[in-house]
Amino acid sequence: MPLYRISSEEGVLSPADREELAKRISELHLRLAGGVRGFVNVTFDTYRRGDVYIGGKIASPISLTGIIRTGRTHEVKLAMVKALQDTFVEVTGLSPANLTVGLTEASPKYAMIGGVVVPEVGEEEAWLKTEGAAFASA
Amino acid sequence: MPLYRISSEEGVLSPADREELAKRISELHLRLAGGVRGFVNVTFDTYRRGDVYIGGKIASPISLTGIIRTGRTHEVKLAMVKALQDTFVEVTGLSPANLTVGLTEASPKYAMIGGVVVPEVGEEEAWLKTEGAAFASA
Amino acid sequence: MPLYRISSEEGVLSPADREELAKRISELHLRLAGGVRGFVNVTFDTYRRGDVYIGGKIASPISLTGIIRTGRTHEVKLAMVKALQDTFVEVTGLSPANLTVGLTEASPKYAMIGGVVVPEVGEEEAWLKTEGAAFASA
Repeated sequence: MPLYRISSEEGVLSPADREELAKRISELHLRLAGGVRGFVNVTFDTYRRGDVYIGGKIASPISLTGIIRTGRTHEVKLAMVKALQDTFVEVTGLSPANLTVGLTEASPKYAMIGGVVVPEVGEEEAWLKTEGAAFASA
Repeated sequence: MPLYRISSEEGVLSPADREELAKRISELHLRLAGGVRGFVNVTFDTYRRGDVYIGGKIASPISLTGIIRTGRTHEVKLAMVKALQDTFVEVTGLSPANLTVGLTEASPKYAMIGGVVVPEVGEEEAWLKTEGAAFASA
Repeated sequence: MPLYRISSEEGVLSPADREELAKRISELHLRLAGGVRGFVNVTFDTYRRGDVYIGGKIASPISLTGIIRTGRTHEVKLAMVKALQDTFVEVTGLSPANLTVGLTEASPKYAMIGGVVVPEVGEEEAWLKTEGAAFASA
């Protein structure tokens, strides 16, 4: 975690859009929420025309969703949602009309990465010096 | 939100099934849970034979899951799950034996759609007149 | 539920790996968490090289995530996460360096399977004799 996922119809996002979004989302996450660079996953998936309906009609929405560790403040999470949307619009030049952005939280208590249990928010520094040493330079 | 997702093995649902399910699920959501027509997403995805196992054996389950905003009563949610299942069976003619239906809830606090923060359950009417005006006729 | 999902880049897991993982994950779930064999779903999905970034760079992580019913103890859930990781490493021979394992919980209250509401944790035995009879021998 965080696990960001951007879902769009085939052909909507160019390879350059994707690369830039992955970089920018990683940076904004680390800047606003802290955490560890090697944790920030951004996955792109696409659907075919006709696979998604809105209000009963075929449509082409884009969703940008993130699962983050529990423990950030309301202010941080709201700032993250807005920054995710602004970044998406800035990078792609697309209107936000068809875009949904959402964050949900999950406990790191029952999550392991690279063979060790994921640290709680705020405990990353100690973790990087001990169990998480492999992530210190990642 | 709501984000409904129907996952099935390739070839199980016809295009006509999909169109009818998308319409009927949108209607039942609006009738039982309220909300805004332009929020109701129904996504279909398919897997290949051999990608899903049940109890360790290759199987072909169908799942119909929805993520809805927090705030509906127990009675409403139970009625929704039953209506989703009944609608699926009625539209497709398939047995519910391989069908799993599930609802989970997510806060709209950290969700944006069409450029604005998603309203809480019960606050849609005021929202449609202000921030959400673009959705009023959608 | 449980719904286990293993996501990896195309070509990373062989068909034999998948079959063995599906069997072993079903067994460890039933051994550690209890439940009903016919509930244990294991789904494999793959992504193409270039669809996933970590820290802004293209990467090939593997994720093994499970959604289980609410109600297990902390000890059980921690043991499950560790067993899932150990099983993955043992079956595939891959390093855990690129592996994320995670469990989240969902209420069975708004879930139906095979036409009936899913039992709470601990109520499976009575359920298998009544509503869930179709699952008793599955």
